[in-house]
Amino acid sequence: MRFLTAGESHGAVLVAIVDGIPAHLSLTADYINAHLARRQMGIGRGGRMQIEKDRVEILSGVRGGFTMGSPIALLIRNLDWPNWERVMAVEGLLDGEGVTKPRPGHADLPGALKYLHRDVRNVLERASARETAARTAVGAVARRLLEELGISLFSHVVSIGPVVVERVDFDRVEDSPLRCGDPQAEEAMKDVILRAQEEGDTLGGVFEVRVKGVLPGLGSHVHWDRRLDAKLAQALLSIPGVKGVEIGEAFSLSSKPGSQVHDAIYWDVQRGFYRRTNRAGGIEGGISNGEEIVVRGAMKPIPTLSKPLESVDIETKEPFPSHKERSDVCAVPAAGVVAEAVVAWVLAQAVMEKMGGDALEEVVERWEAYRERVRTF
Amino acid sequence: MRFLTAGESHGAVLVAIVDGIPAHLSLTADYINAHLARRQMGIGRGGRMQIEKDRVEILSGVRGGFTMGSPIALLIRNLDWPNWERVMAVEGLLDGEGVTKPRPGHADLPGALKYLHRDVRNVLERASARETAARTAVGAVARRLLEELGISLFSHVVSIGPVVVERVDFDRVEDSPLRCGDPQAEEAMKDVILRAQEEGDTLGGVFEVRVKGVLPGLGSHVHWDRRLDAKLAQALLSIPGVKGVEIGEAFSLSSKPGSQVHDAIYWDVQRGFYRRTNRAGGIEGGISNGEEIVVRGAMKPIPTLSKPLESVDIETKEPFPSHKERSDVCAVPAAGVVAEAVVAWVLAQAVMEKMGGDALEEVVERWEAYRERVRTF
Amino acid sequence: MRFLTAGESHGAVLVAIVDGIPAHLSLTADYINAHLARRQMGIGRGGRMQIEKDRVEILSGVRGGFTMGSPIALLIRNLDWPNWERVMAVEGLLDGEGVTKPRPGHADLPGALKYLHRDVRNVLERASARETAARTAVGAVARRLLEELGISLFSHVVSIGPVVVERVDFDRVEDSPLRCGDPQAEEAMKDVILRAQEEGDTLGGVFEVRVKGVLPGLGSHVHWDRRLDAKLAQALLSIPGVKGVEIGEAFSLSSKPGSQVHDAIYWDVQRGFYRRTNRAGGIEGGISNGEEIVVRGAMKPIPTLSKPLESVDIETKEPFPSHKERSDVCAVPAAGVVAEAVVAWVLAQAVMEKMGGDALEEVVERWEAYRERVRTF
Amino acid sequence: MRFLTAGESHGAVLVAIVDGIPAHLSLTADYINAHLARRQMGIGRGGRMQIEKDRVEILSGVRGGFTMGSPIALLIRNLDWPNWERVMAVEGLLDGEGVTKPRPGHADLPGALKYLHRDVRNVLERASARETAARTAVGAVARRLLEELGISLFSHVVSIGPVVVERVDFDRVEDSPLRCGDPQAEEAMKDVILRAQEEGDTLGGVFEVRVKGVLPGLGSHVHWDRRLDAKLAQALLSIPGVKGVEIGEAFSLSSKPGSQVHDAIYWDVQRGFYRRTNRAGGIEGGISNGEEIVVRGAMKPIPTLSKPLESVDIETKEPFPSHKERSDVCAVPAAGVVAEAVVAWVLAQAVMEKMGGDALEEVVERWEAYRERVRTF
Repeated sequence: MRFLTAGESHGAVLVAIVDGIPAHLSLTADYINAHLARRQMGIGRGGRMQIEKDRVEILSGVRGGFTMGSPIALLIRNLDWPNWERVMAVEGLLDGEGVTKPRPGHADLPGALKYLHRDVRNVLERASARETAARTAVGAVARRLLEELGISLFSHVVSIGPVVVERVDFDRVEDSPLRCGDPQAEEAMKDVILRAQEEGDTLGGVFEVRVKGVLPGLGSHVHWDRRLDAKLAQALLSIPGVKGVEIGEAFSLSSKPGSQVHDAIYWDVQRGFYRRTNRAGGIEGGISNGEEIVVRGAMKPIPTLSKPLESVDIETKEPFPSHKERSDVCAVPAAGVVAEAVVAWVLAQAVMEKMGGDALEEVVERWEAYRERVRTF
Repeated sequence: MRFLTAGESHGAVLVAIVDGIPAHLSLTADYINAHLARRQMGIGRGGRMQIEKDRVEILSGVRGGFTMGSPIALLIRNLDWPNWERVMAVEGLLDGEGVTKPRPGHADLPGALKYLHRDVRNVLERASARETAARTAVGAVARRLLEELGISLFSHVVSIGPVVVERVDFDRVEDSPLRCGDPQAEEAMKDVILRAQEEGDTLGGVFEVRVKGVLPGLGSHVHWDRRLDAKLAQALLSIPGVKGVEIGEAFSLSSKPGSQVHDAIYWDVQRGFYRRTNRAGGIEGGISNGEEIVVRGAMKPIPTLSKPLESVDIETKEPFPSHKERSDVCAVPAAGVVAEAVVAWVLAQAVMEKMGGDALEEVVERWEAYRERVRTF
Repeated sequence: MRFLTAGESHGAVLVAIVDGIPAHLSLTADYINAHLARRQMGIGRGGRMQIEKDRVEILSGVRGGFTMGSPIALLIRNLDWPNWERVMAVEGLLDGEGVTKPRPGHADLPGALKYLHRDVRNVLERASARETAARTAVGAVARRLLEELGISLFSHVVSIGPVVVERVDFDRVEDSPLRCGDPQAEEAMKDVILRAQEEGDTLGGVFEVRVKGVLPGLGSHVHWDRRLDAKLAQALLSIPGVKGVEIGEAFSLSSKPGSQVHDAIYWDVQRGFYRRTNRAGGIEGGISNGEEIVVRGAMKPIPTLSKPLESVDIETKEPFPSHKERSDVCAVPAAGVVAEAVVAWVLAQAVMEKMGGDALEEVVERWEAYRERVRTF
Repeated sequence: MRFLTAGESHGAVLVAIVDGIPAHLSLTADYINAHLARRQMGIGRGGRMQIEKDRVEILSGVRGGFTMGSPIALLIRNLDWPNWERVMAVEGLLDGEGVTKPRPGHADLPGALKYLHRDVRNVLERASARETAARTAVGAVARRLLEELGISLFSHVVSIGPVVVERVDFDRVEDSPLRCGDPQAEEAMKDVILRAQEEGDTLGGVFEVRVKGVLPGLGSHVHWDRRLDAKLAQALLSIPGVKGVEIGEAFSLSSKPGSQVHDAIYWDVQRGFYRRTNRAGGIEGGISNGEEIVVRGAMKPIPTLSKPLESVDIETKEPFPSHKERSDVCAVPAAGVVAEAVVAWVLAQAVMEKMGGDALEEVVERWEAYRERVRTF
């Protein structure tokens, strides 16, 4: 299982090709669209989220509503493209001048230095978080596969700026515009977002992805690059703005003694081996242990502020204040939805590595046989 | 650049093969041994660190003190092998009974379920942190390459259990048995380690790796799996016991407003573009930005305690108290040294991807040309 | 450098995503289209080549006529799609019955068994050589890069059925409808094609790709999967219908004594090292040696014949005669053009591995420096 | 499944690390040694084959005679090492002068230019076919896995120099010093080898690998780099001296009409689908079709001759006659044994991709279930 995505933020389209999905998986554009819509909700999002209702077109790999085993091509059109056609023209003269003013906290400057671009737009267009729409679509395909195996994922917001949830009711998350399970914290989060907006500032925070239904045995301890937690870490940190990750509450647990950290092992004839605590976040020794998988990502505040940050023009070398009139204030809930997608991808890949198989019926059959084997081990 | 390692904790040897190192790099066993020794220091380490002074043998790929461009094979003998030869015999009957008692917090149980091992030793031998000796050796090779480009790395301990450093003097780290730059914190750390030891408990903590001399432009924003920060995250989380990672102080910065988080851009004719702050930890948009690279790992307390943890025998299904008479109490300083190794590997790989080249002189020449290009951009 | 393609033969589109092309390479749809057109010429091609004049759309990664360093998405529409929309519908009910009659020599039966498809169309749509249009487009991008380094490729036909070229004039190949450099052989080839057409039969043959301007040092002897010749072999055999490959005239040379096979080494101050013969086909020890690269592919006759071949219905298990009214008779010249594309890809990848670099100017600069280094070695 | 090998021809050892072999596979050094011995037989082999009876040591990944799922490290000592210790010293001064005389037909010159080596020994030591001993050992591990699934491989010699087999009795191959199934051809082969030896010349030829017991469905048509035949082609061409490959008799079949080339499909209730001919060599559309897999490699004559070939000293630029007193005359039978190893690897990898699984019992169970599914399709 592998995929590539392409597309610039203001280009005509985003495209993704997904290879290695087994045949006979039911898959519709509507299913993927629902997850694209979840990514676009939130409070404190800028105007673009309103402009574009992302809708996917499945171009290949699916026939009569089922995957064929061949590569799946996905396309999301940029509805705003007519306004950008001349700035982003593939061929011919470009409209307007190049961008020479790099924004701190973005790929703008390091990207320009890497690719020797003197028009920073050639960097920022691809570095934009817009690309995560493509990955959300890809992740939805992986999620569809996981659903067939009884695996489900969701994300919720743990903190926005200084506000941290306390008592979380997971049932309210999907209806919360901030994907927040704690109603009191949610109110406080709305307040800090509003205040940041007034001050021209932005906010980051922490989100959490939880995955139910994963059997033990995904990932492996035998080589560093096969560890499930390490792959999840790479996937999460690959989301723009995410700069930290933990499995379970690793940072806080790193200050506690071992006797309070590890999850004792129990067994009964119905369930086989199980735990009563899940401080490990469902992964031990780089391998899923059958408990809920819990991973968290720390997202930095969005670097495009209305408040100015100092920067330097790459042509004139003159300093200038980097800022933008209107912008998103906080994208943590959306990042959580993207994180679901990348986690779904990593897990589906791990499942396929362990199960093999080219048709869904093979995968399901082997998964259920393994479930029983593990239960009666 | 790629590598594989092999070897069980109580097997005859650890082996690594490293492919893709350019020719003409000077490399000696002594150089690698120095880094193996750094991994073995510390306070609160169990008996094994005393038994084994790890020494590497370079078996291939180096001739007359210089790399040849061919794969480099490294071997570290297990000095304790004679005591284990019958338990770990490659062929023939094994001495003694199998291990059926999985330890919470280890790969023992999920590994047994994955590989259908009824003797848990077949899991724990490879899941042991002993494997990191091989990776430290591999990382030393990468580090040798980085040195030629003016890149240097070191690690220090940020916290052990509840004790966190405050004022850090990096110059004292290498002489500190706990790799701690804050003498006061170091005393407190020794105390908590001693106390944990008395109580049969263990401690985790946080380490930090810092890398100087990296030019902008390593990694890329164009595809998720080419982001430098995400690769570093995978590398760090692949170290046994490490469950969290942050670039810079990402978790703490996720609670601050954007205006206090991003690093303003400056320029002068000597240095080119530079920053006065480094909250981004040297990486923006998945690309190195020329500032010091700063990554942190959160390590859970060692799961092998003298204090008992509940578990279940996989054969009898009887509960038993999992514990061990003597064990390491805290391995955070060593994990930092291993982290240097894996960070060195990721960076060397990123350098080689950007520079190409098969002989060191090519790599250096291109690196210096790029340095100048970036400075005068 | 990597790419994925997607798309079924009668689906709406073919899509490709190409990642890792350096920035600042000039690239236009016209350039790619010219190579797509070369693939569609020939004698003995069925009706489809007339229906579809393949035209690419560049969807991303190119701006103002130059690559940006970001992934390049390419799309080729199927002009016949309206006629297939209901048979190949992505969602909803499919028009018509499934295909249950597998054709010998195609992926039909093994693909159905692998993916457990009971409608063989789900296999044959992707297994069709139509996919090579996408790869030709991808190869054109690689070729554009090679051109900047002074590397050029062409293919010609060595044999069709029993007719083999004798005296080849490479200058006439591009104007020959059969890409044949020997006018007499060309006439004979036309005859055997015509005759095969009359008899409802098909023909295979051998094509050759030649590459000028490659410096020594691409590929490597140090590990099996880094050998240039082996990568070329994989690339060539991945073209549908190609079942054999040789570097130079390997099969015929395997019957000669060594003294007549190897290429003596010469040197002069202008050229550096060079050869007067090129029996090695430009590759020694898995590494380019600076001479012209010469690779040949043996293509089996097209398996869809008007003459019947026995087969068995997968549902009824009844035997049936597998045949088709009209079909291509011979696709060897087209296979040669596709082979240019896949060879261009492998070489561009090898160049980028050796040169590194993210912008074309870096790649060119390093290539020229290396050219000089090799010349004055 | 992946592996790396390391080691120079006259270095202390060859090493290989094999990752991804399922647990519980029985594996002994003797088993591997038997295949190493098969590689060393033959007529017309130089002195070295006598000196070194290769013997493997299994260093990790195997316990009590069974694989553990962890990486398997294999080591083959160079028995002649004491004689080379100073020429090939890893550290310290090297004995003797560097090699400055590149041999035509070897990696010597292109390798020196690539790695900027002025001592050609730094190339030739790794480019030597000695490395195939390591790959033979790796392939033996893969073969052990295939045996558990009822898959068996053997190779035989099709031609040596101008002598081609006619009537082949596969049963006599394993006892033939030339791995030749045609007694008359064998005599003629001995003659041409003897004559070549007298004339200071060398001979190449063609070998064939045949694999019985492969189920349909290995490899895939959906993406170029997943085609089984293309992977086999890369594997075969990666053997030093092999410059051509064909699936079945592709080159000869490329001159025949389609009606004589494709394999009609039959079915009966016992066997399911089957063929009465196997011109496709067991692979259609890049996928195994259940018939015997047949691949051939064309090996060039060994480039180290007693007869001189012209070359140029890389330091003095003076021409010199490249030759060697005594050398192997013909290595085709050995190349066939190496080819078995690399084919075994590719097939085992394809099996594991389709079957998944971490323990042998899972793999076997799934393989048998798939066998039945295919039979009753």
